[in-house]
Amino acid sequence: MIKKIHHIAIAVRDVEKAAVFYEKILGLKLGGVEEVAGMDVKVGFIQIGETRIELVQPLDPASGVAKFIEKKGEGIHHICYEVEDTAAALRAFEERGAKLIDKTPRIGAHHTKVGFVHPKSTGGVLTEICESS
Amino acid sequence: MIKKIHHIAIAVRDVEKAAVFYEKILGLKLGGVEEVAGMDVKVGFIQIGETRIELVQPLDPASGVAKFIEKKGEGIHHICYEVEDTAAALRAFEERGAKLIDKTPRIGAHHTKVGFVHPKSTGGVLTEICESS
Repeated sequence: MIKKIHHIAIAVRDVEKAAVFYEKILGLKLGGVEEVAGMDVKVGFIQIGETRIELVQPLDPASGVAKFIEKKGEGIHHICYEVEDTAAALRAFEERGAKLIDKTPRIGAHHTKVGFVHPKSTGGVLTEICESS
Repeated sequence: MIKKIHHIAIAVRDVEKAAVFYEKILGLKLGGVEEVAGMDVKVGFIQIGETRIELVQPLDPASGVAKFIEKKGEGIHHICYEVEDTAAALRAFEERGAKLIDKTPRIGAHHTKVGFVHPKSTGGVLTEICESS
């Protein structure tokens, strides 16, 4: 059901400033910078092989990502796995006993269907699933 | 220089207990469970496409991973990128201005040469590099 790790999201105060490490030190490229309507974040990704680092900057100080940074500082926020069908995967996870944040898919970055599993079910790791984008 | 994301390390209190989410909910398989001599950790990995989730359990309460869990709880600990040559990559990163934890490689899990970049250089993300294993 899980096809690959789609991205690893990193909470940052500023996408372009955070990208300097990936571009100047690691020699990678920032792309896909966009503001995600309805999620109050600006995102940019760094493609590495089949997966991505996704830099996530809060645009609203009341958002979950802003609170994360306030509490813990900038750092790794969640892991997203790519699945064929987000709705079916969420149903399957719930049947297998997972506690979900999203019982049905919502639209995330890059217009794909996403859903979050609660960290209580995952050993403290906020876990997202998405369809390919 | 960066070939792929080799693994995402997750600090856990117990490898087998933490693996239940990945096996029972996500339908993945835990493998490669071993104790890493000299690093005071027990590790196990979950292969997903070209990359892995690596579960890291401290065996010594004075270790860095144990302190991480004590302070922040179980969760994502670091990202490891695969490179051709760890020593050469560490030298290049330092020339480009990165602050390193390891100026020369040391032996990590699965007997590969690894090195860590300090989170101060990376926007709060503990970053490891390793050669293929």
